[in-house]
Amino acid sequence: MHVLITGAAGMLGRKLTERLVADGSLAGRPLDRLTLTDVVEPFRPAEVTADVVATDLAAPGAADRLLAGRPDVVFHLAAVVSGEAETDLDLGYRVNLDATRALLEAVRVLHEQDGYHPRVVFTSSIAVYGAPLPDPIPEDFHHTPLTSYGTQKAIAELLLADWSRRGFCDGVGVRLPTVCIRPGRPNKAASGFFSSILREPLVGQEAVLPVPETVRHWHASPRSAVGFLVRAAGLDTALVGPRRTLSMPGLSATVGEQLEALRRVAGERAVRLVRHEPDEAVMRIVGTWAAALDATRAERLGFVAETSFDEIIRVHVEDELGGVLPS
Amino acid sequence: MHVLITGAAGMLGRKLTERLVADGSLAGRPLDRLTLTDVVEPFRPAEVTADVVATDLAAPGAADRLLAGRPDVVFHLAAVVSGEAETDLDLGYRVNLDATRALLEAVRVLHEQDGYHPRVVFTSSIAVYGAPLPDPIPEDFHHTPLTSYGTQKAIAELLLADWSRRGFCDGVGVRLPTVCIRPGRPNKAASGFFSSILREPLVGQEAVLPVPETVRHWHASPRSAVGFLVRAAGLDTALVGPRRTLSMPGLSATVGEQLEALRRVAGERAVRLVRHEPDEAVMRIVGTWAAALDATRAERLGFVAETSFDEIIRVHVEDELGGVLPS
Repeated sequence: MHVLITGAAGMLGRKLTERLVADGSLAGRPLDRLTLTDVVEPFRPAEVTADVVATDLAAPGAADRLLAGRPDVVFHLAAVVSGEAETDLDLGYRVNLDATRALLEAVRVLHEQDGYHPRVVFTSSIAVYGAPLPDPIPEDFHHTPLTSYGTQKAIAELLLADWSRRGFCDGVGVRLPTVCIRPGRPNKAASGFFSSILREPLVGQEAVLPVPETVRHWHASPRSAVGFLVRAAGLDTALVGPRRTLSMPGLSATVGEQLEALRRVAGERAVRLVRHEPDEAVMRIVGTWAAALDATRAERLGFVAETSFDEIIRVHVEDELGGVLPS
Repeated sequence: MHVLITGAAGMLGRKLTERLVADGSLAGRPLDRLTLTDVVEPFRPAEVTADVVATDLAAPGAADRLLAGRPDVVFHLAAVVSGEAETDLDLGYRVNLDATRALLEAVRVLHEQDGYHPRVVFTSSIAVYGAPLPDPIPEDFHHTPLTSYGTQKAIAELLLADWSRRGFCDGVGVRLPTVCIRPGRPNKAASGFFSSILREPLVGQEAVLPVPETVRHWHASPRSAVGFLVRAAGLDTALVGPRRTLSMPGLSATVGEQLEALRRVAGERAVRLVRHEPDEAVMRIVGTWAAALDATRAERLGFVAETSFDEIIRVHVEDELGGVLPS
């Protein structure tokens, strides 16, 4: 099994790489080769044959070179996040749309040459939905994104479905919840605070909350998100049909409920480290997002997420803090 | 008022041009200039200052040249039809996606230069929907096209909404029913028979029906379609909001009901000219299309279509046959 991961230097890409290396297999077949790519050179795991490639996927020829080794599974994670895609229109369209199209086009060229037909797992987002939204959002609800990021993800979903329908590849889109708790430093996603209000206080640092505690949102841990990707790679797509992107399960919780879970896990002292600093720009973006999704299709296909924020915090403590809270 | 029409040599483009010239105005302002473009040189009306330009809209610089005169209203009708977009993937994506994007990108460049902010009226299609479909299709139903044409139209809807939200243009998409009765020769649209089974018999010629009479579909006359475009150009978009594409009203009718109307208008002899020749390929495409749409939003905004097939046939006789049936 040869696996290509785009966006491999990002948080999900690194965690997916670790998971694949730890499993030593994917979809029931031994993992014998990894191709890892990103705009910066991804970390090279020692345990498996890995090509690491720093490249701009939207540049002419880049996708062809990445696919030359005919990876069986392509995880297409490379993306400019929501906040940055909103402030830098050109960059967002270039990475989130042009690069995706370049990748799919390169797949098609190989398909027409020799019947190449990889599983392509694509990470979409709840940002394809735009307010006003029902709660939960039904699986057949239209995509009316209110950010360029959501627009680009919705377009990529359409392309993936068309490519799969035409038989160029075997695509599965996973419409990810907001990934929480993101480890590491904040990125430019408008959703970043959902993680930082837990992550920072857990290690005794301050965090800023830019929205009211009543804001409800849709979450899954990084561990669950990686689980979705692995599940999508092994899925029998005959069970998916032509509607190739699935809303992933998640946990619908308010910021207040997040903070209550933080209190239970790390005490009042941790919660006091969260400073309320309302930010109109963030509130405007986040206010257009989903509070909960109907993920029945994905649940029936074996995708699983957390059911409490205590669990999400415990996953973070286990995976990022060595299983113990600093005293 | 300066108006640009892309796809101006096509059936709708020509009828829209005739209508604008006949009205002498658009959205309450006198029409003083037309720019008409297509891949072949469009017909030049004598009654108004008109630039006619044969160009490939997807070619570098083409859109910039067309917009140099800062048209107040852009009707973007240029498209490769469904059947052809399915058989020629490259052409479909080039015209229906790349050219649309090039046009929008050129609008953005001018917007950033000098605040240019045209009304852009885009013709989308019911092909954005893919089976299984509810009947009627609610306005908030998701877009899961089962053709590349539908995919390209759905993507263009997303781009138009993003461009409008960002303030680069003031877009309105009209999701057209199948236009029936199309005048002239058949084109490569899979929906062509819906017109030919009426158009040909009305002038004493045979026509082929490739689907069962029970097939139900969603129709509006060319006159109504042009009416939608004109209405969209003059619409107060504050009433439209961020969901920029509207499902147009239409008439839901079975092929059998079409033939009954033909019988009432032109007699049994006309109906006998329709030969039943089932075509699996056409049935497969048409079987994924919509039978009826909820068009409440558009109706409230003043968009109007026919309410009987007798009326649709009468419009054809008036507009194409000089008001009389050949004896």
